Amino acid sequence: MAIHPVIMCGGAGTRLWPVSTQAHPKQFHRLVTDKTVFQDTVLRLGGDGFAPPVVISNERYAGLIGEQLAEIGVAPGAVLLEPVARNTAAVAAVAARHVAAIDPEGLCLLLPSDHFIGRPDVFVKAVLEAASVARSGFITTFGIHPDRPDTGFGYIHRGEPIEGSVSRIAAFREKPDLETAESYIADPAFSWNAGIFLFPATLMISELQALAPDILETATDALNSAHEVEGGRLLDPAHFGTVRSTSIDYAVMESTSHAAVYAPLDCQWNDIGTWTMINELRQNDDKGGTVNVDATNCSVHSDASHMVALVGVENLTVVIEGNRILIAAKDHIQDIKNVVTALRESGREDLL
Amino acid sequence: MAIHPVIMCGGAGTRLWPVSTQAHPKQFHRLVTDKTVFQDTVLRLGGDGFAPPVVISNERYAGLIGEQLAEIGVAPGAVLLEPVARNTAAVAAVAARHVAAIDPEGLCLLLPSDHFIGRPDVFVKAVLEAASVARSGFITTFGIHPDRPDTGFGYIHRGEPIEGSVSRIAAFREKPDLETAESYIADPAFSWNAGIFLFPATLMISELQALAPDILETATDALNSAHEVEGGRLLDPAHFGTVRSTSIDYAVMESTSHAAVYAPLDCQWNDIGTWTMINELRQNDDKGGTVNVDATNCSVHSDASHMVALVGVENLTVVIEGNRILIAAKDHIQDIKNVVTALRESGREDLL
Repeated sequence: MAIHPVIMCGGAGTRLWPVSTQAHPKQFHRLVTDKTVFQDTVLRLGGDGFAPPVVISNERYAGLIGEQLAEIGVAPGAVLLEPVARNTAAVAAVAARHVAAIDPEGLCLLLPSDHFIGRPDVFVKAVLEAASVARSGFITTFGIHPDRPDTGFGYIHRGEPIEGSVSRIAAFREKPDLETAESYIADPAFSWNAGIFLFPATLMISELQALAPDILETATDALNSAHEVEGGRLLDPAHFGTVRSTSIDYAVMESTSHAAVYAPLDCQWNDIGTWTMINELRQNDDKGGTVNVDATNCSVHSDASHMVALVGVENLTVVIEGNRILIAAKDHIQDIKNVVTALRESGREDLL
Repeated sequence: MAIHPVIMCGGAGTRLWPVSTQAHPKQFHRLVTDKTVFQDTVLRLGGDGFAPPVVISNERYAGLIGEQLAEIGVAPGAVLLEPVARNTAAVAAVAARHVAAIDPEGLCLLLPSDHFIGRPDVFVKAVLEAASVARSGFITTFGIHPDRPDTGFGYIHRGEPIEGSVSRIAAFREKPDLETAESYIADPAFSWNAGIFLFPATLMISELQALAPDILETATDALNSAHEVEGGRLLDPAHFGTVRSTSIDYAVMESTSHAAVYAPLDCQWNDIGTWTMINELRQNDDKGGTVNVDATNCSVHSDASHMVALVGVENLTVVIEGNRILIAAKDHIQDIKNVVTALRESGREDLL
């Protein structure tokens, strides 16, 4: 009845181009510390009470996963490889089936691999506290204390208390407009939805059976027909390709009567969604060199081989990675995803 | 009694970093046309009336000179190599001695290799017209029609007419402040000093003998003791190192009674001193790719291997050359030389 971390690392963060690419997405880079974001995620869940991690990712990252786990000396419980992406409901179904088969009373901690947590001890303590509530029959989410009216996150409105910091969920709120976000952060009952879920494997199976039986069935078939490949087990493409693609929030959380939230969680959580956030967090220095001539408020992230000279410019984020160079105004940092779109439209998949 | 082009190509234009470097300065790059600036300079002086070019440069560029002349099928009259730079008076002395020895009645056309001329036919016609005046005993400069109050050039104030477009020189004027420059361009008697000189070799020798005999003597010794090296003749280091370093303007032109100017010359002359000028002139396209997301008034010069994405930025000049990246505000383009200074001070000669 251990807690089985199920680490999702199949995505590619386009807003961190050019460092984050399809071939080497952001979670596999040393963006903040001297470890990759994926490695930090694995390592913070390695203590008492946790089983070895289950890694779920796209098959193309099997090599990176193996290398990066070996680098930190962690043997995974399993590496489950998706032939195509089918969103988080499919992942939850596969994770629940996998864990239930090896540990019928086990809990799954389903979480993204591309978040930074500045106070891992606070996070782990919250998980362990939430685990006792989850075991009594809850799918527990984690609500991050919101320190600004961010319109890029969903919010959780917490309801009646269950135990300690865990409450029932009154409502999930989609990404709000700024005015609504400001009203949320003025109300201590609201927190950011971090997309982290803690649940008994068997409870998720029964909830999927009740609320999204097609997803449970096709995902189970894909897991049962999985076969060994280099670096992991490949979910059967014929079955996995037919799984309905939707989020666990829509498929289960918004309908189940077992939803709970641990909130507020104040663990210096950050989804490292943009270069601006990385600038704020960064603990490691730039590897390349910079010459600054009358430049103000500029951030440079260069690889080891380039030298960047800034002359008379201000408020720029500059990122150099191999043959790809990004020069962005800091107040347009959200538009980097449009670069990726433009490159894809012009057939430059080699640069994505 | 031909006109011997004496092409000076030993300098390195630091304001065009990172393309222009010590190892490969701007005159040896394809900055504007599909030929290098040096090649265009040689080719525009290849017609009737001109002897094969004499190239004077630093010894480190012997290889580049040989390659680039071969590429355009030009056999030089001589390649004279300086072990150290000793400014233009030394070059004029060497050029005059060299030409006088092979063509006692020959004229020297002493000119920089790093200028662009948009109307070479107009320029050549002016040189041929000025040659007849020069032969009668003048050191003739060329005054460019000034189309803006540029404070980066010296100005020539022309005096009484000699013949056609050639006049005596009333005065040389140092680089002026803006107010003075504005008064100059309002007066048709003023023109920019292009640093181009046309003179009988024997006249320059006699004027140097009268006005700067030490320069003539040491430079002559260096030429007489020159020895063959790969790619040219190396001026003897022991002698050439002792030549007083000063400009031909100071050493001769401001004192001689034989100074003349052909003016105004309107041949679309441009000293390609900054990236801004290159942006205006550029006939060849960028080799690398660019993605533009809400970027305005930016110029990108990238080598073939890099992709540059601009997001929400404006008024930037971006230059990529190998591992060196320049990002400059267009209104700070003159400060690029400070990048070179900073790199030198931090011991990064490899990037210069």
